[in-house]
Amino acid sequence: MAKEKKLVESITSMEEDFAQWYTDVVKKAELTDYTSVKGCMVIKPAGYAIWENIQKELDRRFKEVGVENVYLPMFIPESLLQKEKDHVEGFAPEVAWVTQGGLEPLQERMCVRPTSETLFCDFYKNDVHSYRDLPKVYNQWCSVVRWEKTTRPFLRSREFLWQEGHTAHATAEEAEERTIQMLNVYADFCEEVLAIPVIRGRKTDKEKFAGAEATYTIEALMHDGKALQSGTSHNFGDGFAKAFEIQYTDKDNTLKYVHQTSWGMTTRMIGAIIMVHGDDSGLKLPPRIAPTQVMVIPIRQQQEGVLEKANEVKNALAESGLRVKLDDSEKSPGWKFSEQEMRGIPVRVELGPKDIEAGTAVIVRRDTREKITASIDELPVKIAEVLEQMQSDMLERAREHRDTHTYVATEKEEFKKIADEKPGFIKAMWCGCQECEDAIKDEVGVTSRCMPFAQEKLADTCIWCGRPAKHMVYWGKAY
Amino acid sequence: MAKEKKLVESITSMEEDFAQWYTDVVKKAELTDYTSVKGCMVIKPAGYAIWENIQKELDRRFKEVGVENVYLPMFIPESLLQKEKDHVEGFAPEVAWVTQGGLEPLQERMCVRPTSETLFCDFYKNDVHSYRDLPKVYNQWCSVVRWEKTTRPFLRSREFLWQEGHTAHATAEEAEERTIQMLNVYADFCEEVLAIPVIRGRKTDKEKFAGAEATYTIEALMHDGKALQSGTSHNFGDGFAKAFEIQYTDKDNTLKYVHQTSWGMTTRMIGAIIMVHGDDSGLKLPPRIAPTQVMVIPIRQQQEGVLEKANEVKNALAESGLRVKLDDSEKSPGWKFSEQEMRGIPVRVELGPKDIEAGTAVIVRRDTREKITASIDELPVKIAEVLEQMQSDMLERAREHRDTHTYVATEKEEFKKIADEKPGFIKAMWCGCQECEDAIKDEVGVTSRCMPFAQEKLADTCIWCGRPAKHMVYWGKAY
Repeated sequence: MAKEKKLVESITSMEEDFAQWYTDVVKKAELTDYTSVKGCMVIKPAGYAIWENIQKELDRRFKEVGVENVYLPMFIPESLLQKEKDHVEGFAPEVAWVTQGGLEPLQERMCVRPTSETLFCDFYKNDVHSYRDLPKVYNQWCSVVRWEKTTRPFLRSREFLWQEGHTAHATAEEAEERTIQMLNVYADFCEEVLAIPVIRGRKTDKEKFAGAEATYTIEALMHDGKALQSGTSHNFGDGFAKAFEIQYTDKDNTLKYVHQTSWGMTTRMIGAIIMVHGDDSGLKLPPRIAPTQVMVIPIRQQQEGVLEKANEVKNALAESGLRVKLDDSEKSPGWKFSEQEMRGIPVRVELGPKDIEAGTAVIVRRDTREKITASIDELPVKIAEVLEQMQSDMLERAREHRDTHTYVATEKEEFKKIADEKPGFIKAMWCGCQECEDAIKDEVGVTSRCMPFAQEKLADTCIWCGRPAKHMVYWGKAY
Repeated sequence: MAKEKKLVESITSMEEDFAQWYTDVVKKAELTDYTSVKGCMVIKPAGYAIWENIQKELDRRFKEVGVENVYLPMFIPESLLQKEKDHVEGFAPEVAWVTQGGLEPLQERMCVRPTSETLFCDFYKNDVHSYRDLPKVYNQWCSVVRWEKTTRPFLRSREFLWQEGHTAHATAEEAEERTIQMLNVYADFCEEVLAIPVIRGRKTDKEKFAGAEATYTIEALMHDGKALQSGTSHNFGDGFAKAFEIQYTDKDNTLKYVHQTSWGMTTRMIGAIIMVHGDDSGLKLPPRIAPTQVMVIPIRQQQEGVLEKANEVKNALAESGLRVKLDDSEKSPGWKFSEQEMRGIPVRVELGPKDIEAGTAVIVRRDTREKITASIDELPVKIAEVLEQMQSDMLERAREHRDTHTYVATEKEEFKKIADEKPGFIKAMWCGCQECEDAIKDEVGVTSRCMPFAQEKLADTCIWCGRPAKHMVYWGKAY
């Protein structure tokens, strides 16, 4: 038992130190590793397999709404980055610059893309001529670089993986529609696949993307009560089109500027899965995103017939379409249980000589640790049911946690007190002025997460200045 | 008809100027576009969809042989790149250097990965301790950068997409086995999916990868008689392990160096598909890799019932598992035919009022232009058969072209004459000395493509120096 205990003991408990717990889980579940490249990470097989499932699910949903994949260069010449004023101001301070190619210095330095609006504009400028060429609904899967000072695996690193969609439309209405449509794709994906409930809303001008007219966001609440921006969708209007001269000839034979959008989701979502669902035994993966859904663990596997039966069970589960593995290593069953729990595999099947004799096996849920005895023949059907139940229970549990950590404040002092004492979202009214937003950030330590689509009138006046309120805002501390 | 003619006329013919024909196809089939980023390309939806299919097929084959995907940083600190002497000499002259991150100069400059051996070694050094940690059979899908002077879409560009597998093993035998296994995965993929026959063999020491003990390669012959290196697999022995100190404790409790391999395939294969199968009407995609396999083209679509029936046919084909589209745009049928041919879509289905009345449709093969009349009900079955036939006919045709353009030389003058007059592979014996290989390159203008696994004894002596021959070599001009 000494060994088994060690595996679990070596994780810091969530309550004690959430940040350390997070780091421990990432390491112990073998999701990432450190590298000699400062601020970057190695994504190991267990971590990358989660990303592959995220890609598969999102890409399918994208294609259903007419998105086509492309690939653009990873470099942006400095002059191109500078074409849109707000955009360059937002990104130039945090890019990596390439100054030499081969043995010679470059005539013009280039940055490694922090995001590709400027490249897509440069492309669309040449590719869009007539209304017949519109809309363009393109996306790319790639890595981007932002020169962050402090980094954490998945949540903030100098290089990360993402997808970035970039679209061009004939009209402002169509661009706005696409912006909202893609935000909803993200929100549905988070809730249906990652079991993470999100607040859909709009960013304040202070928090919007550099160069955007409007930024929409989905915000999730982590277990420690901090918010995580989980996906954003931007409407650029015709601002970039004017800076890059992207015009098309309309049906009426006049030249018009296109209207553009962009939207992205990143490997950060792996961090969200960890921080929403995990516990002191490690990772807890929602069944729909889990690379391995079932781990079959034989008991007394040296006894005749046990491994054989375990293999049979594994094959039957695989045939029924489940993602299943068999742990037939020489470790003790207890050690295997701890590993399966640390890695967040949704259910394990325990199968020993007595079970085999009885024609049954024990299914153990990772989320509740509930044990369910089922006949071996019924395992595929039973486990499929258990996984479905787990998926919806995990969403429900996350929603409950989010809701019980969402507070309403109608008075300034109350607002400060909640922000001080209760980690979570605070709903409060706001006048719409950046001065109040700045002051709240400085004096209360929370930022505006979003103005939710589902607005409520909690009071008539701004929580800060007392002038008439314009929006209800979700406030919170954020990653 | 004027418009239709224009589309086709604007392509240079293959016989006239193969290089220009290639560029025209890439552009007209909308595979890539130029960008402001010199030497890099935009891969457009039609091109990227081919790459997605290549990824899907290869990734599936990788996973069947135990490969796991990971992601490592895109940057390599200079000191890391320099650890293996041959490797740094091979790559340092052609990398892009990042010298500034954010607003500050870097303490140590980093290159954008041209390949990731050094990063994987740095990773394995920390991740491998015991024989129980071996083998590591990892792969990543990413982009790499090599600062080429002259570039061509897909064939040679400063940034390209690829996969790079990197493995670590306990023994030399296991590493060699894996090297050959992955070469065979590539070869089978090329022949079964891309319909491109390849020669499997080993590179000479002069042509091997920087830092490798042995490089294996598959070589394909393009329509113009030039060779294209299509995939390589390297055995590093313990060279990198010694440079990076990657050691493990074996069962006998002694420290040993691991043995490593790497292997890669790139977007260059899209160039190979174009140059092996294409013709003066454009691209010709093998059915198994074609993003769209069938284009339904209605004739007299304004007539009542035609578009409705065309839609029915499209849906029936889609339901049967074929990748199918319907071209219901306002262009003329002739224009649509030309577009479908230019884009290399394997078959089109022509469907007009007379066909509908007769309950039939006309299937037209892209490769032979053969027209097959089939009843509408039977279309899904019939087209599936036609596609299977096309797939094997295309491989057969490519093999025939390769074989009729493979020559044997046993005398020096004959060798020179063939190299001068007949584009293709030349099989000839070689003594194994680099002096002969260098002289052949300088004086005959061909390079050694590989020493094929299937050796033949064409003569006793080296084609160049007359000393005893050691290997039969495929020689040729290469991309």
